[in-house]
Amino acid sequence: MGAISVDKILVTPLRQIAVAGGDVMHAIKSTDPGFVDFGEAYFSKIKLGAIKAWKRHLLMTLNFVVPVGAVQFVFFDVQGEQREEVIGLDRYVRLTIPPGIWFGFRGLVAPYSLLMNVADIPHDPAEIEHKKVDEYIFQWEHKQ
Amino acid sequence: MGAISVDKILVTPLRQIAVAGGDVMHAIKSTDPGFVDFGEAYFSKIKLGAIKAWKRHLLMTLNFVVPVGAVQFVFFDVQGEQREEVIGLDRYVRLTIPPGIWFGFRGLVAPYSLLMNVADIPHDPAEIEHKKVDEYIFQWEHKQ
Repeated sequence: MGAISVDKILVTPLRQIAVAGGDVMHAIKSTDPGFVDFGEAYFSKIKLGAIKAWKRHLLMTLNFVVPVGAVQFVFFDVQGEQREEVIGLDRYVRLTIPPGIWFGFRGLVAPYSLLMNVADIPHDPAEIEHKKVDEYIFQWEHKQ
Repeated sequence: MGAISVDKILVTPLRQIAVAGGDVMHAIKSTDPGFVDFGEAYFSKIKLGAIKAWKRHLLMTLNFVVPVGAVQFVFFDVQGEQREEVIGLDRYVRLTIPPGIWFGFRGLVAPYSLLMNVADIPHDPAEIEHKKVDEYIFQWEHKQ
C-alpha cells in the first residue's frame, strides 16, 4: 500500500463537444483508461479558497472530473514525493488516483467549483484515512 | 420496445450532505434502485431557456442527476401518455428512464444548468432515435 507513487496518477484528456443550447462534456466510459469498476458517482462542491485536506483511500480508485470551475489538487506519497494538478474547464482532463495516495484540494473559482468522483467501490469510511490540514504543510496560497 | 410507459420512470431522492468548504451531493451507487450497469457518465449543459428535444434510446437506461441549476424534463410514450419532471438543487432527485421513452429538456436557470447522465452502455448513435423539436408539440414556455 505505502509503495504507490504519485507518478501513477493518470491524466486523461476529455472532449467538450459544442452543442446548440449547451455543450456535452465527456467524463468516463467503461472502456476508458483508468476505469476499474463502478461503485459510486458523487459530487463535491468546493468554494473559492476553501481547502479540503487530507485524505487517503486504502482501497478506492478515484476518477476526478471538474465540469464547473477549476480545482487545485495536491498529492503526496509515503516516499515523500509531491505532485500538483489544476483541472477544470480550461484544462478539461480526468485524473485517476490509485489507492494509497494522500490528496487535498482547493477551489479556484467563485462561487464554487464542482468535482465529480466516479469510484470503483461505494463510499466506505473504513477504507479512508484522514490527516488534519496542518498535518502536512503545503503553501496553498503561494501556489495559485 | 413501444410498450414501455412513462409510469416506469423512477424518481429517487438523493442526499446533499453539508460539508465545510462545499457540500457533498450523492448521485448513484452500484447498489441503488435504477442502477443496471455502468457504460458511461457524461455531462450536458443546458442554457437558460434552451431546449434539447426529442430523443429516444432503444437500449440505454438513463440515470439523470442535475447538480447545478434546474431542468424541466418532458417525457412521452407511444401510448400517448406524457409526464413532466423538474429536477435540480431544489428537488435533488435522480430520474431513471428505461429505454423506449421519448424525452426533451429545457434549462430553467441562468447562465446554465448541468445534467449528468450515468448510462448502462456507452454512447452509440445506432440506438438513438431523434425527432425535431416541432415534431411533438409541447408548450414549453407555458408550463414553467
